[in-house]
Amino acid sequence: RAPVVLAIAGETSAGDAPGPPLAPSAARAVMTGAPIPPGADAVVQVEWTEAVSDREVRIMKPVAAGANIRRAGSDIAGNSVPLRKGHLVRAYEQGVMASLGIGFIAVRRKPLVYFIPTGNELTEPGKPLGPGKIRESNSPVVTGLLRREGCDVRSSPITPDDRGLLSAAIGGGSGCDMFVTTGGVSAGRHDIVPEILADAGVGIVFHKVNIKPGMPLLFGMRGDTPFFSLPGNPVSAAVTFLQFVRPAIRKMSGDPDPGRKEIVRARLAAGIVKKDGKRHFLRGRLENLNGEPTVRVAGVQESNVASALAAADCLIILPEDRRDFAESEYVETEML
Amino acid sequence: RAPVVLAIAGETSAGDAPGPPLAPSAARAVMTGAPIPPGADAVVQVEWTEAVSDREVRIMKPVAAGANIRRAGSDIAGNSVPLRKGHLVRAYEQGVMASLGIGFIAVRRKPLVYFIPTGNELTEPGKPLGPGKIRESNSPVVTGLLRREGCDVRSSPITPDDRGLLSAAIGGGSGCDMFVTTGGVSAGRHDIVPEILADAGVGIVFHKVNIKPGMPLLFGMRGDTPFFSLPGNPVSAAVTFLQFVRPAIRKMSGDPDPGRKEIVRARLAAGIVKKDGKRHFLRGRLENLNGEPTVRVAGVQESNVASALAAADCLIILPEDRRDFAESEYVETEML
Repeated sequence: RAPVVLAIAGETSAGDAPGPPLAPSAARAVMTGAPIPPGADAVVQVEWTEAVSDREVRIMKPVAAGANIRRAGSDIAGNSVPLRKGHLVRAYEQGVMASLGIGFIAVRRKPLVYFIPTGNELTEPGKPLGPGKIRESNSPVVTGLLRREGCDVRSSPITPDDRGLLSAAIGGGSGCDMFVTTGGVSAGRHDIVPEILADAGVGIVFHKVNIKPGMPLLFGMRGDTPFFSLPGNPVSAAVTFLQFVRPAIRKMSGDPDPGRKEIVRARLAAGIVKKDGKRHFLRGRLENLNGEPTVRVAGVQESNVASALAAADCLIILPEDRRDFAESEYVETEML
Repeated sequence: RAPVVLAIAGETSAGDAPGPPLAPSAARAVMTGAPIPPGADAVVQVEWTEAVSDREVRIMKPVAAGANIRRAGSDIAGNSVPLRKGHLVRAYEQGVMASLGIGFIAVRRKPLVYFIPTGNELTEPGKPLGPGKIRESNSPVVTGLLRREGCDVRSSPITPDDRGLLSAAIGGGSGCDMFVTTGGVSAGRHDIVPEILADAGVGIVFHKVNIKPGMPLLFGMRGDTPFFSLPGNPVSAAVTFLQFVRPAIRKMSGDPDPGRKEIVRARLAAGIVKKDGKRHFLRGRLENLNGEPTVRVAGVQESNVASALAAADCLIILPEDRRDFAESEYVETEML
């Protein structure tokens, strides 16, 4: 038998050719989103109908039983689990929750992070800049990136390279879930962060990594609390933050894939030769060239040149086991 | 003459082979970040030195004049413009500003957006769900995505398909920079949003676009204020938001590249055939397969199936001018 059809407004498929008209049928109008009246088993879009009289409508294409009906449970069936433990709750997940009438769920708390900028050469914003001094500029980068990850952040004032003051600063972060410091991790006499951390009961897990910039990075643990001591040069601090601190935050937040989200493959616009066996992170700019993602080096590649980060939209990742990278070769980049 | 050298802690290049030892020289220690003493013109890392006596140090590799000195202005020269109008201010730019002692700059205000969810079938959270009714689930998605772009958002309560109530809801957004509605833009008798917008003085710029899902999208302008009326199906609402509303917000915020930031090329894990000449946006999942970004279709591809968005991390973009897409072919995806 012919299905009982109802005219409905909705999306049409422009590619469907109209079929032969059906005989007028006992059709009733039904609106987008409205329930299907009892006895009806198919819907046809109003665009495919013609009013013949007040009581009759001509259907302009064949209609199968069940067409254009969204059955209860077709999005989420009664026995399904739409979100499992570890699933990141984005706007889309909140939509799914709302569709189920769920206003609140338990989520993993984002880490509360304590940030300590260290260095005798650093000057607070607003204070006069003495000879040989520089402005402290890691705070807005580190705390801004932490907040972008959803962390709450508490910050210490700038701490000089002084044992007592540095110990006190670390004590000021008690109760925090993670510590991040900048500066004081190189090999100089004033680079006392490693010692002070050890005195504070932090077990040093590693100090120095085979990357450029960012070699002096230090990582330690005290109980369950990670300590990241980033180098003080602004590009080194940003790169080590993105390579080490951000994945740690995501892992602590339950993210099963903490390190790969921003990785994009792109062709090199020009060949690059590096002179050592470190993994390099160059500041780069991505563009679309003849339909291919293409990346070129952006700005001066020294670890003190923070303006190159502002000129960049990605890091170009050059692995440690190779030195020559050819023009047009595909490399991994990490979007900033 | 041999440069006057100073031992400094800092990053070393593991790839540099040590050179012949230099004769002990009038070297003085200087710390990372400290000013260069008058008369000195090069620095060597402490790792490349050996203490000979209390007063002498042996330098273990050749040192060029100027080595390891960061000259004032090497990041940002006095006559340079590190940030120009239209530059997006991220954490990195705030670092550059801080390094220059700049605490505040004038930025383009993010749009204040008024959101109106419409539809007789929609039920507020917490209220009992009657027969044929569904939960309103577009609000958390649309307002969440708006807030992720930095917008302030004001929301109307759910508005039924009623001329008076819809007109009043639009009036409630006076003073806002942009309006976004969901529902009521298809061709049915209750789909009155286009008429009500026209009555409110909105010039309709276009209604219906050649995409799937999201075909019924309507866009209009009243003076400088854009009005986006998104289809009510949750996937259609999310897709049209990402393709139209988000680029508009970024353009209003001064972004010179508002539509391409999340585009990533990936191989199709399996071939796809589409049946029409629309541009399709399928829900997909990206993964790294043998070093190649690879995408597969995630979940049921119907515009009411919001759970497929929760299962997805990207949209697979299939252009309107082709229908068959082969396994392993590269396509564009847009990261969610």
